[in-house]
Amino acid sequence: MRLSSFFMPTMKETPAEAQIVSHRFMLRAGMVRQSSAGIYSWLPLGFRVLKKIEQIVREEQDAAGCQELLMPTIQPAEIWRESGRYDDYGQEMLRISDRHDRDMLYGPTNEEQITQIFRDNAKSYRDLPKLLYHIQWKFRDEIRPRFGVMRGREFLMKDSYSFDLDYAAARRSYNKMFVAYLRTFSRMGLKAIPMQADTGPIGGDLSHEFIILAETGESEIACDKAFLDMDWLGEETDYESDLQPTVDSFTAKYAATDEKRDADQEKALGDRLAVARGIEVGHIFYFGTKYSKAMNAVVTGPEGEEIPLEMGSYGIGVSRLVAGIIEASHDENGIIWPESVAPFKVGLINLKSGDEACDKACDGLYGDLLKAGVEVLYDDRSGRAGVKFADMDLIGLPWQLVVGPRGLKDGIVELKNRATGERQELSPEAAMAKLTA
Amino acid sequence: MRLSSFFMPTMKETPAEAQIVSHRFMLRAGMVRQSSAGIYSWLPLGFRVLKKIEQIVREEQDAAGCQELLMPTIQPAEIWRESGRYDDYGQEMLRISDRHDRDMLYGPTNEEQITQIFRDNAKSYRDLPKLLYHIQWKFRDEIRPRFGVMRGREFLMKDSYSFDLDYAAARRSYNKMFVAYLRTFSRMGLKAIPMQADTGPIGGDLSHEFIILAETGESEIACDKAFLDMDWLGEETDYESDLQPTVDSFTAKYAATDEKRDADQEKALGDRLAVARGIEVGHIFYFGTKYSKAMNAVVTGPEGEEIPLEMGSYGIGVSRLVAGIIEASHDENGIIWPESVAPFKVGLINLKSGDEACDKACDGLYGDLLKAGVEVLYDDRSGRAGVKFADMDLIGLPWQLVVGPRGLKDGIVELKNRATGERQELSPEAAMAKLTA
Repeated sequence: MRLSSFFMPTMKETPAEAQIVSHRFMLRAGMVRQSSAGIYSWLPLGFRVLKKIEQIVREEQDAAGCQELLMPTIQPAEIWRESGRYDDYGQEMLRISDRHDRDMLYGPTNEEQITQIFRDNAKSYRDLPKLLYHIQWKFRDEIRPRFGVMRGREFLMKDSYSFDLDYAAARRSYNKMFVAYLRTFSRMGLKAIPMQADTGPIGGDLSHEFIILAETGESEIACDKAFLDMDWLGEETDYESDLQPTVDSFTAKYAATDEKRDADQEKALGDRLAVARGIEVGHIFYFGTKYSKAMNAVVTGPEGEEIPLEMGSYGIGVSRLVAGIIEASHDENGIIWPESVAPFKVGLINLKSGDEACDKACDGLYGDLLKAGVEVLYDDRSGRAGVKFADMDLIGLPWQLVVGPRGLKDGIVELKNRATGERQELSPEAAMAKLTA
Repeated sequence: MRLSSFFMPTMKETPAEAQIVSHRFMLRAGMVRQSSAGIYSWLPLGFRVLKKIEQIVREEQDAAGCQELLMPTIQPAEIWRESGRYDDYGQEMLRISDRHDRDMLYGPTNEEQITQIFRDNAKSYRDLPKLLYHIQWKFRDEIRPRFGVMRGREFLMKDSYSFDLDYAAARRSYNKMFVAYLRTFSRMGLKAIPMQADTGPIGGDLSHEFIILAETGESEIACDKAFLDMDWLGEETDYESDLQPTVDSFTAKYAATDEKRDADQEKALGDRLAVARGIEVGHIFYFGTKYSKAMNAVVTGPEGEEIPLEMGSYGIGVSRLVAGIIEASHDENGIIWPESVAPFKVGLINLKSGDEACDKACDGLYGDLLKAGVEVLYDDRSGRAGVKFADMDLIGLPWQLVVGPRGLKDGIVELKNRATGERQELSPEAAMAKLTA
């Protein structure tokens, strides 16, 4: 993409309304614009990141045997009355009347909708186990939306639902999602620590929040330092194998959100205790027959008996992750994208657009990179070098390839690594080789 | 995907509520389920088709130089008051009050939202021309939703918007979308005929509906038979070249919707007149400064003067196309998917699951097809052959690979082409070669 025609309205000033670093950089880099409180339009640069994150989430869900479908945003109130949550949900639910005065709502989550679908279309224990997910916009009418897409009203979420015949099977589904989440966040360059979360009246220990570490995170957490050095992704996962030992290797270690910290355990950890800040990006939860009993979602068992479905739900905040990754990876000049979610891999900077040698060299590199399948944003604008460097640092592409008249005379271009700041002078051919390796 | 674990609830009976063939087959094949009137959940089989159509639309928009972004579903009423459409739109607009009693709405279209974004972020004639699009769910509160996803309330639409400095440039943008639409529909195996549409108070001739031919289409159209034989896709398009001759080669030919038919022209055509039925799947429209003037969306010209933006909008009904393609391509047994949008390319039928030889041959073919990157749905269920044949015809995958005990004894499998009904007996190796060619 040529920057001269790309719709990327960057800003030099820091917008006054933006209180956290991700919100500031997303506005300044032209990634998003507010439509109304807590509701955002994703401009092309931000959209590209959103899609990459969505795709990683999708691939890891698919790998875990989860099947993708898509439920609508607008749901009928009846199914929420069946579950008993219509009145409970309070003002965060965006309630809507259609032209025939039917009670509708913009889904804040989909337990009821998926339970209805499954109830109406799966009848036998032979239809189990099943893991289903969708990636769809949700709406929660927060009283005070803030922090940009970190705490928006309209937000993109991946939510999965498991259907099983009994607790042991439900636990296997839970473990699949547990491991899939570790892999998902790891692919985005994040350390996401699973932390025991409340299960409320459901009881048991099958509820975990996944919290990524970020110096500017929203809340304080404490954990065993061992988490910081663990290999999050590891080998390819065989989801048909017993995942309990893997899950145990994580849950056995101490990790607690602020309200759950335990002085005794922390004392025992001694030097191995890390206190850090974090951001919740995922939550998995086993809730047994809560919805299936309320909504009469049963299957026929091997002996013809009716068995209520054992269920769990598993969420990832896809749009929130865009901000979360920025909180975890930035410096004072801007964003530092991990390569897996970067909107482009390379920023090609023409230091002197209009100069024949510079244009020729840049056009050639641009064409070659495209041909090699490398996503490249080519700053072909006229204008000062300082502006180009600042914009490129701000939007945080992993590599900057800088072409100027002086270097070209010696057959040299400069390759800068955004994360380390390391600069290398090398021939255009060597730079190409490095970027297409 | 193994059918034994795929969530694809087929139905043998024709659902009473489904009046048109696409709706019947989509329900019977387990592609969609109704959530409430005119609102559907897309089950995994339907979702795969929806995504393929979306991806073709996306690729052709990108190729035409259109940049993707994403606007939210919920819009503030204010921008619609600016344009004057808030009161005009009537009851089809789903109006919403949030918890602070602010007037919001579920976007039925996005002219106002994109005009606001562009107005606030593009200031100079140097920011032009620009083509922007998004693929997002829309809502129109139809008084009597029917025909399944053909006329739903919540539907997926691709809408593009062009921003130009003057009429000549706007016409170039219009032509790009005109050609992109021809290419898009052609890739889906459709003949989409552009037909002059009303421009109302805007005037001029820059408004076309794209109507695909389908025997069971919603309306009657008449056109020059030449359309039926034209090469819709042709060579790769150079969108920087002058596209007017290509556009003219289509618009010069007679084609009219029912209300626009012209007896004199039809008489002149004589034998070359075709009368057929069709379904509208796209609409492109140049509307000049209608929104930019109302919303004060201007750029600064080369002389410092303020110039209101020349705009156009360009829609494709993505979810509607799923039904449209079925209307255009089916027989009495079910859907006949064009390969480009098929949920899977191959249906592998094991005629005798549990039989050692059949299982071994099928598992081998399944693995080989997956390894070759061929999308395959493997019917590994126990059950009668008749049910398997009927289900496979119903869901309409382009190829059926049938493996039975008798054929295997002679080293033979059967390959059936769903569209032509042609069957071939051949060795498993030859079948693989054909399917991976």
